[in-house]
Amino acid sequence: MIINQLLQKLEPTSPILQANFGIERESLRVDRQGKLAHTPHPSCLGARSFHPYIQTDFCEFQMELITPVAKSTTEARRFLGAITDVAGRSISKDELLWPLSMPPRINAQEIQVAQLENEFERHYRNYLAEKYGTKLQAISGIHYNMELGKDLVEALFQESDQIDIIAFKNALYLKLAQNYLRYRWVITYLFGAAPVAEQGFFDQEVPELVRSFRNSDHGYVNKEEIQVSFASLEDYVSAIENYIEQGDLIAEKEFYSAVRFRGQKVNRSFLDKGITYLEFRNFDLNPFERIGISQTTMDTVHLLLLAFLWLDAPENVDQALAQGHALNEKIALSHPLEPLPSEAETQNITTALDQLVQHFGLGDYHQGLVKQVKDAFADPNKTLAAQLLPHIKDKSLSDFALDKALAYHDYDWTAHYALKGYEEMELSTQMLLFDAIQKGLHFEILDEQDQFLKLWHKDHVEYVKNGNMTSKDNYVVPLAMANKTVTKKILADAGFPVPAGDEFTSLEQGLAYYPLIKGKQIVVKPKSTNFGLGISIFQEPASLDNYKKALEIAFAEDTAVLVEEFIPGTEYRFFILDGRCEAVLLRVAANVVGDGKHTIRELVAQKNANPLRGRDHRSPLEIIKLGDIEQLMLTQQGYAPDDILPEGKKVNLRRNSNISTGGDSIDVTETIDSSYQELAAAMATSMGAWACGVDLIIPDRTQPASKEKPHCTCIELNFNPSMYIHTYCAEGPGQAITPKILDKLFPEVATSQT
Amino acid sequence: MIINQLLQKLEPTSPILQANFGIERESLRVDRQGKLAHTPHPSCLGARSFHPYIQTDFCEFQMELITPVAKSTTEARRFLGAITDVAGRSISKDELLWPLSMPPRINAQEIQVAQLENEFERHYRNYLAEKYGTKLQAISGIHYNMELGKDLVEALFQESDQIDIIAFKNALYLKLAQNYLRYRWVITYLFGAAPVAEQGFFDQEVPELVRSFRNSDHGYVNKEEIQVSFASLEDYVSAIENYIEQGDLIAEKEFYSAVRFRGQKVNRSFLDKGITYLEFRNFDLNPFERIGISQTTMDTVHLLLLAFLWLDAPENVDQALAQGHALNEKIALSHPLEPLPSEAETQNITTALDQLVQHFGLGDYHQGLVKQVKDAFADPNKTLAAQLLPHIKDKSLSDFALDKALAYHDYDWTAHYALKGYEEMELSTQMLLFDAIQKGLHFEILDEQDQFLKLWHKDHVEYVKNGNMTSKDNYVVPLAMANKTVTKKILADAGFPVPAGDEFTSLEQGLAYYPLIKGKQIVVKPKSTNFGLGISIFQEPASLDNYKKALEIAFAEDTAVLVEEFIPGTEYRFFILDGRCEAVLLRVAANVVGDGKHTIRELVAQKNANPLRGRDHRSPLEIIKLGDIEQLMLTQQGYAPDDILPEGKKVNLRRNSNISTGGDSIDVTETIDSSYQELAAAMATSMGAWACGVDLIIPDRTQPASKEKPHCTCIELNFNPSMYIHTYCAEGPGQAITPKILDKLFPEVATSQT
Repeated sequence: MIINQLLQKLEPTSPILQANFGIERESLRVDRQGKLAHTPHPSCLGARSFHPYIQTDFCEFQMELITPVAKSTTEARRFLGAITDVAGRSISKDELLWPLSMPPRINAQEIQVAQLENEFERHYRNYLAEKYGTKLQAISGIHYNMELGKDLVEALFQESDQIDIIAFKNALYLKLAQNYLRYRWVITYLFGAAPVAEQGFFDQEVPELVRSFRNSDHGYVNKEEIQVSFASLEDYVSAIENYIEQGDLIAEKEFYSAVRFRGQKVNRSFLDKGITYLEFRNFDLNPFERIGISQTTMDTVHLLLLAFLWLDAPENVDQALAQGHALNEKIALSHPLEPLPSEAETQNITTALDQLVQHFGLGDYHQGLVKQVKDAFADPNKTLAAQLLPHIKDKSLSDFALDKALAYHDYDWTAHYALKGYEEMELSTQMLLFDAIQKGLHFEILDEQDQFLKLWHKDHVEYVKNGNMTSKDNYVVPLAMANKTVTKKILADAGFPVPAGDEFTSLEQGLAYYPLIKGKQIVVKPKSTNFGLGISIFQEPASLDNYKKALEIAFAEDTAVLVEEFIPGTEYRFFILDGRCEAVLLRVAANVVGDGKHTIRELVAQKNANPLRGRDHRSPLEIIKLGDIEQLMLTQQGYAPDDILPEGKKVNLRRNSNISTGGDSIDVTETIDSSYQELAAAMATSMGAWACGVDLIIPDRTQPASKEKPHCTCIELNFNPSMYIHTYCAEGPGQAITPKILDKLFPEVATSQT
Repeated sequence: MIINQLLQKLEPTSPILQANFGIERESLRVDRQGKLAHTPHPSCLGARSFHPYIQTDFCEFQMELITPVAKSTTEARRFLGAITDVAGRSISKDELLWPLSMPPRINAQEIQVAQLENEFERHYRNYLAEKYGTKLQAISGIHYNMELGKDLVEALFQESDQIDIIAFKNALYLKLAQNYLRYRWVITYLFGAAPVAEQGFFDQEVPELVRSFRNSDHGYVNKEEIQVSFASLEDYVSAIENYIEQGDLIAEKEFYSAVRFRGQKVNRSFLDKGITYLEFRNFDLNPFERIGISQTTMDTVHLLLLAFLWLDAPENVDQALAQGHALNEKIALSHPLEPLPSEAETQNITTALDQLVQHFGLGDYHQGLVKQVKDAFADPNKTLAAQLLPHIKDKSLSDFALDKALAYHDYDWTAHYALKGYEEMELSTQMLLFDAIQKGLHFEILDEQDQFLKLWHKDHVEYVKNGNMTSKDNYVVPLAMANKTVTKKILADAGFPVPAGDEFTSLEQGLAYYPLIKGKQIVVKPKSTNFGLGISIFQEPASLDNYKKALEIAFAEDTAVLVEEFIPGTEYRFFILDGRCEAVLLRVAANVVGDGKHTIRELVAQKNANPLRGRDHRSPLEIIKLGDIEQLMLTQQGYAPDDILPEGKKVNLRRNSNISTGGDSIDVTETIDSSYQELAAAMATSMGAWACGVDLIIPDRTQPASKEKPHCTCIELNFNPSMYIHTYCAEGPGQAITPKILDKLFPEVATSQT
């Protein structure tokens, strides 16, 4: 079945760009001197026996990062960015990821095969080491996986005269593979980035400076006698089967090629069950990109793949591919500034690209990519390999690579509370996702705006919203906690201390309550206290008039109003998980403490230099402002922003202790008496809550607490309690919570290393 | 300890009216002829071994309704009204509750003791029957329980010179009991309502017409030799203990008195642990009130009790109480129109009432009650017994009682979907509460506006919101169902049919989707479809312009918009509970079907006569209107409201099929193919939902469904699905769901009768 001129028949509005993508990236672990790391694969990562995203390839120190299937190149890079973030912060803080395909200076003895649990996999690697040599195994790269979109394939199928869609798809992918191999020199020319090998890497004689060692036959290739035809799928399958039978290959995956068919457990299954996607294996790591491949590369390659479908299949496949191989070898081993040889059919490629763009009305972005390809074809300076030339020192890229590795390492470690690429999601969800990836759980973001995740391990699926809304809580308990009146009743019935008070649905009812509260410190607030509006606090007993006003203010916000005793003391937030208190937090209002030398303005700037302080809830703390409210507070304390604050003098810049207005979070988990932790945990348990934030007012925390004499009052229970506030604090060590949530959701997932 | 002149010392703003109340009401079951019912206690009621609200007293047909503790007289009557509703609809539809204290015509052999499980209780009743005679046992009444408010007692305690609050409270209640017995004639005079005994009831000679046989010594009293002193608590306790030891009483509860101390398991415990409340046992059933006691009676008695505390205690208790007993006997056996004898110290009472009102500034309502007491003291015509006189026929009240019983029965059976007294709550919650009371579960309404209930049986507590938000669902599943995008992903991943489509967060994204949907029937809607705003349906494929407009309309309502294929067919709602489909509902738009004789207006009125149709979601169906929208629809079909509709012709009055706009609900549970029920149940199960409403579009319900060929599409999963719509339908039998929810929450509670 020949599949030619089908794209040309499609409607211009066809979903030509519809495709799924996946990226695998190999990268060596090195130390801060750029030498291979001889440490084991990090034990904080989920075991390699099941980890879907972070593996080791050949060697113990050769990490392999694997994305889940993405719907776009952007999404694929976003996935890879996050997995890279996790990998970068799971390895030792003294280790870096080598950004080049070609390894640093190594000797063969250094290279230890991956210490995997699976016996076959260890045996396999030892065999490869024996057969191909260990140093070659350390060459790293990127595999670019692509599956044509379902609707696109369907549309092509409709244009064809075929009746079996599986056979049709196979023919489509076969043609794509054929043209890919025929024109693989394009990839090598544009994106080759392995121009030098470090001293002592190759045993044999090699040119000094090339485009890509990795993409040449000096790279990681099969023995010359392994020749697999792509003339038909049957040929491909049988050839490999025969080699295995003859013992020339030990497994189907030992067949190395710039492109492989994927999607079935064994090759023969492709024939009846169908190829699912293609794996393009000839991408060198781009050291200018933290994740090893740029957005433009991903999208340019996507266009090129479509161009390979646009073009007709080669008539004599074996011959065309052999010529393609030879041309690629030549271009791979050329000097980076050498122009393309005349036999490189750039015109075919650029014409196909132009026609694609024209036919499908692709816009500015894709037109720009095509122009870049044309420019690079014309001018080798515009290739990736050429851009590396200025960085080669003494025939080595090591210094450059090390600089890059350190820079990317530092980047990974900035905003370490976030998950790179997902900074728009809530912090606690970012933290949970980081931990999930680290632990080797599968993840899918079902709804980004809603912080809705799907996590799974084998058949065990869990949904998580907002980081701690899980199946572990039952449905009605958070509903109870959302209702202050219900919560207070339940706690009070269980014998826990809550503020005395009542709920009123009319001004008259509220006023009738006055006799019981006059002479007392009280709080009058709308039943639903959103944004803190409508609350009146009477630390001096209220007159009837003022009490009435307070009721009116509250009734302006809600149809139900609570009048409660005001509880003096300090408020602490207890994070309870599964019956145990995991963290205790004190929040204090935005403030600075003087040192006798600096002005308040300068002290604020100093405090704001803390990398944890950012804006708008996407960092654990907020920038302290010096706006009207803060200046008014200063004035009330007798200060102005440019006054020097005496040593030890503390001034508050806000009245409220919210983190969102610049407050400090202080982790007091290890300093507060454990009796309070137990009491708070008991409260959450009596509600039936699994994840719960308990707000206690404690007048004197040096007094231990008990159920009979609590010495505290519970003013609120919070479902969906914030987690990041406990982990990244202004003061105190901080407590990790998100990993515990995952351990409890997936107790079967141990974080042992193998 | 003498407690006098304490109330007088209280601040006028003291919570003088603060108290807890409970009511117990006995009532005989009779048939529609007014004869005693000889059927067993209804088996649909939870077993008497644990039922907190509906018991039998002495006889099998003597129901006893017991309210939980209420914070006000209003709440106590509300409770009793609801329990009466349940009792009234749990007994056979041919049975009524006798509204008088004095039984209908009976003979002793008719009276069967209550067939209780508990052996002691059966033995006890047989002993009572033997000792006092069975007919006397059939006299019914009301017990009025009252506990003084905590803050009120505390305030009185502060005014006293006492140091032990338990002893203080005991003294308070003792004084109240003393004055109550001393002045019990007031209750008998004002509220006595047992003026006649039916022929053959009394064996002995009795007057023909009195105020209250029940409140005289002809009523249910101990043998004359039982004399218990109220001079001190110790006297009271010891006296009863001695009688038991001597065998004159078999149990402490065999001591009958107009007032008893309550709150401990045995009387002796009162001395150290304290009396909790008082039980006032001398209230005859008021046949003019469905629940047997009026609001004014409850509140007047409350004032009288406070007056008895305002007055000093009798100096010689035994003597004063003996005199009180004699006076009560005289007044009880007087003709209802006889004025009070001079020895009745009305002035003490009215002065105390006036002083109470004055001192504490009680308002119009209470002042009115006091005036009514004064008026009744002056004029016997204003007493309850006098109001019964006109209804006595041939020395019998039976006809009157039967009329009342039938009227109250009919009332119980109107709006049988509601729970009387709780009509402002959501229907499904009213239904669940009804079932909970029927089954004998304890209930507390934690938040009425929030439909938040606490239900319990022994130590097993469940919280329920909105009737079906329970602990049986886990937290994250309803959150998933609230998000259409997440729901669709989960269902699609599990292989269930959902509308194809996508979600967009910008106009550009949405427009880029056009190629994939042009030529198709689509729906464009905001992601959160509240109130159905912003939805565009294209049953004809949309032009790009119109598609763009539809996107703009939707984006005006939400930041995210869904574009989905339009699924033609009929929508059915499947109610899934615990993996099983319990009900299937078809909703059709408001409509009438002609009969060739009546106008559309008349047909609408006929349809609106269905007692299920009401307004504003407090009835299962809604009134069909003939407003602008309906008239427009008629016009579009070529009709006007006063046209006669041809026989069999159906006109729709609305386009949408919501019940809230007058639609019909049709229960098709038993007629729709069970394969759809299984498929819907499987969808809910794959989400992990326990209570779930599945909306399926089914084009042809005669075609069976399977996972592979579903012949339907799921357009939505609903957490918190409405339940009443399935139970009370315009057509079809209706399916009971709320009882099943309770059976699953409390499997240990069997509805067996004993």
